[in-house]
Amino acid sequence: MGNELNIPVLDLPRVVIIGGGFAGLKLAKGLDSNLYQTVLIDKNNYHTFQPLMYQVASSGLEPDSIAYPLRKIFKGKKRFHFRMAEVQKVNEATKTLETSIGTISYNILVMATGADSNFFGMENVQKHSLPMKNLVESLDLRSRILKNFEKALNTNDLHEQEALMSFVIVGGGPTGIELAGALAELKKQILPKDYPDLDIRKMQIHLVEAADRLLANMSKTASEKTENFLKKMDVNVWLNTQVKDYDGKEVVTSRHVFNSRTLVWAAGVKGVPVDGLNATMARGNRVVTNEFNAVIDKDSIYSIGDVAQIKSEKNPNGHPMLASVAGQQGLQLAENLNALARKQPMIPFRYSDRGTMATIGRNLAVVDLPFMSFGGLLAWFTWMFVHLMLLVDFRSRLVVFVNWAWSYINFDKGTRLIVRNKD
Amino acid sequence: MGNELNIPVLDLPRVVIIGGGFAGLKLAKGLDSNLYQTVLIDKNNYHTFQPLMYQVASSGLEPDSIAYPLRKIFKGKKRFHFRMAEVQKVNEATKTLETSIGTISYNILVMATGADSNFFGMENVQKHSLPMKNLVESLDLRSRILKNFEKALNTNDLHEQEALMSFVIVGGGPTGIELAGALAELKKQILPKDYPDLDIRKMQIHLVEAADRLLANMSKTASEKTENFLKKMDVNVWLNTQVKDYDGKEVVTSRHVFNSRTLVWAAGVKGVPVDGLNATMARGNRVVTNEFNAVIDKDSIYSIGDVAQIKSEKNPNGHPMLASVAGQQGLQLAENLNALARKQPMIPFRYSDRGTMATIGRNLAVVDLPFMSFGGLLAWFTWMFVHLMLLVDFRSRLVVFVNWAWSYINFDKGTRLIVRNKD
Repeated sequence: MGNELNIPVLDLPRVVIIGGGFAGLKLAKGLDSNLYQTVLIDKNNYHTFQPLMYQVASSGLEPDSIAYPLRKIFKGKKRFHFRMAEVQKVNEATKTLETSIGTISYNILVMATGADSNFFGMENVQKHSLPMKNLVESLDLRSRILKNFEKALNTNDLHEQEALMSFVIVGGGPTGIELAGALAELKKQILPKDYPDLDIRKMQIHLVEAADRLLANMSKTASEKTENFLKKMDVNVWLNTQVKDYDGKEVVTSRHVFNSRTLVWAAGVKGVPVDGLNATMARGNRVVTNEFNAVIDKDSIYSIGDVAQIKSEKNPNGHPMLASVAGQQGLQLAENLNALARKQPMIPFRYSDRGTMATIGRNLAVVDLPFMSFGGLLAWFTWMFVHLMLLVDFRSRLVVFVNWAWSYINFDKGTRLIVRNKD
Repeated sequence: MGNELNIPVLDLPRVVIIGGGFAGLKLAKGLDSNLYQTVLIDKNNYHTFQPLMYQVASSGLEPDSIAYPLRKIFKGKKRFHFRMAEVQKVNEATKTLETSIGTISYNILVMATGADSNFFGMENVQKHSLPMKNLVESLDLRSRILKNFEKALNTNDLHEQEALMSFVIVGGGPTGIELAGALAELKKQILPKDYPDLDIRKMQIHLVEAADRLLANMSKTASEKTENFLKKMDVNVWLNTQVKDYDGKEVVTSRHVFNSRTLVWAAGVKGVPVDGLNATMARGNRVVTNEFNAVIDKDSIYSIGDVAQIKSEKNPNGHPMLASVAGQQGLQLAENLNALARKQPMIPFRYSDRGTMATIGRNLAVVDLPFMSFGGLLAWFTWMFVHLMLLVDFRSRLVVFVNWAWSYINFDKGTRLIVRNKD
């Protein structure tokens, strides 16, 4: 039966949620404490606001501004227990989870474990490239970018200097284009002042995308505008280009070989389901669920967010792996589980697309609303406003706002600290 | 002659400064670019505002708020070169420095290398305790404190739980009392809400000091007020108590054995001079200099800040190791070196004591001015105002102010993230 992680065993059914991302957070918030005991497990003690991660990597925001302590979010919620632990295995027969701090049983299990970088089996690329899927990786990337310039300053080997000052970003989705734009701003406004001894014009930013347009999930208008914005900002956009190999020095692609010390991997993600669950899987390592987010052929196991794929005739490929989908699924599942306990009918999940947006740089963004697409200054203000409002609390909003306002007025970025010593 | 780290060799004399703390910063700022080429070397690319480090360790401020990129500080300064490197050795005969990125020659060398924790030869204490002398150590401490509570939640061994929830801080100087006060505030305001499953009253904060009063460098009034404030905040103050040993579980002192998993070492510092300099040393591993901060019996080598001790009849023990002393010495040496180049006379260093202060907690601080001492609310506002103004730039001031105002109004702390995975 396990040690239950020192969580009291109540008469109420226990919902165990794995993962404190957008999906898990909304679900845990929405569950009725009079109907369920809620246990949330995450390997970190904080929730990360992933859409702004690229700003940490590009010295725009400090990590603490986009991470939020989970215990604080659930302060005062009754019959709620957070445990910081790694989940090792699900045991369906005993309805228990094995974790790094012991075993816990569940009545209902919800997998909201999200997604991680997908290198599509290219081991060399995985070994030498830098992903950006969590705070630690974002800080690694920030330090790497800055360290490259410190090293470039100190070499007389021009080939090596070129490699240090060349950045290849793979993946033309929001993460890739936002990071490319942020690097272009560093190149234009910050680095020439920080490194007067270096010829910053030598810095090259390459954005590599396998498809024939950027932001494939957005409108054609958005794709075209984005490509134009990036080119104007001196980013080299390579469409229809596949990465084949990378040894830490040369990025081999289907069209060109780049001499670069830094390959940022933003090209694909895959779900990270918990071990031990022999579930039906869909493309991208996602667990197949029905329209109520129940995992197919499993008893009392649900899955939401990036790791889940709802199978329906309407959406044969499932919903996109977006924060908004994850949040809506979490909210819907909370309502459905509450309904279940009250013996009311569950409602099938329907994604309400309120629009998609991406920012490229100062005054430049693209927004797709269900009824129109637009780009430029207004889109940029929309992007900023929406993202500020999405931050979990007022303190973060204030701090992020101060940082953004400062950067905007002063053409400056706040936090160019090298905090990593490796390599 | 070395590779000169790719720094151009000019007709002007080259001043090489090791260390970008308060002393090195003021010196580099004050040197006249028409008289000298300035090279600043630091192992980090940022300056740290050490007086607020304890707030990082106690989840009050994010690390980026108190660290500032050195390149940004010297943006636009002519004939100035920063290099991120570790200095390995000084070679007096050739007037060169060996560093991790190559060799550089100097005309004038200034050691501003500061101080590090002094464990007075107690190897076990050094091995198991947590110091707080740089940003990385402060983040380690923050993670340790929070992780202890996560672990305490998950153990049924009451002796182990007591050890996890007991914090022994050694050293009754400003760092020790400020950290003790900050932990007491966590205990009172934050932790009971974050850990409703734990009986936070079991948390014990012990402040251990070998002398017979706290804040030995301040007035007796300040010492007494501080002791009273801390006791009121439920901190156990142990005066006349020496730490003897620590194995990671039991802190052995001259009066008591504490069952504690966390020993914070704030009891002593020692200078960290560069290797290869066979200089006359004073107590605390400080390099002895004359009143112009020239190292005794050396040619064109100066030393300022914590690592230096000016030998004079008036100050047989040198000046205290304070940020204000370091800053004033840096400024004075800049003026003196400028005078030297202009063939004007140098002025001997005189410390101008503008007061000392320490904060204990909400509305509680002590201030010693040359003509009076006071404590309480007014002292606390004075402390906050002075520290805000001392921060290097307006952006940091704004961000720190927002955080402080937020904490004050909401009895909250912003950034309780566990960002370390070790132990």
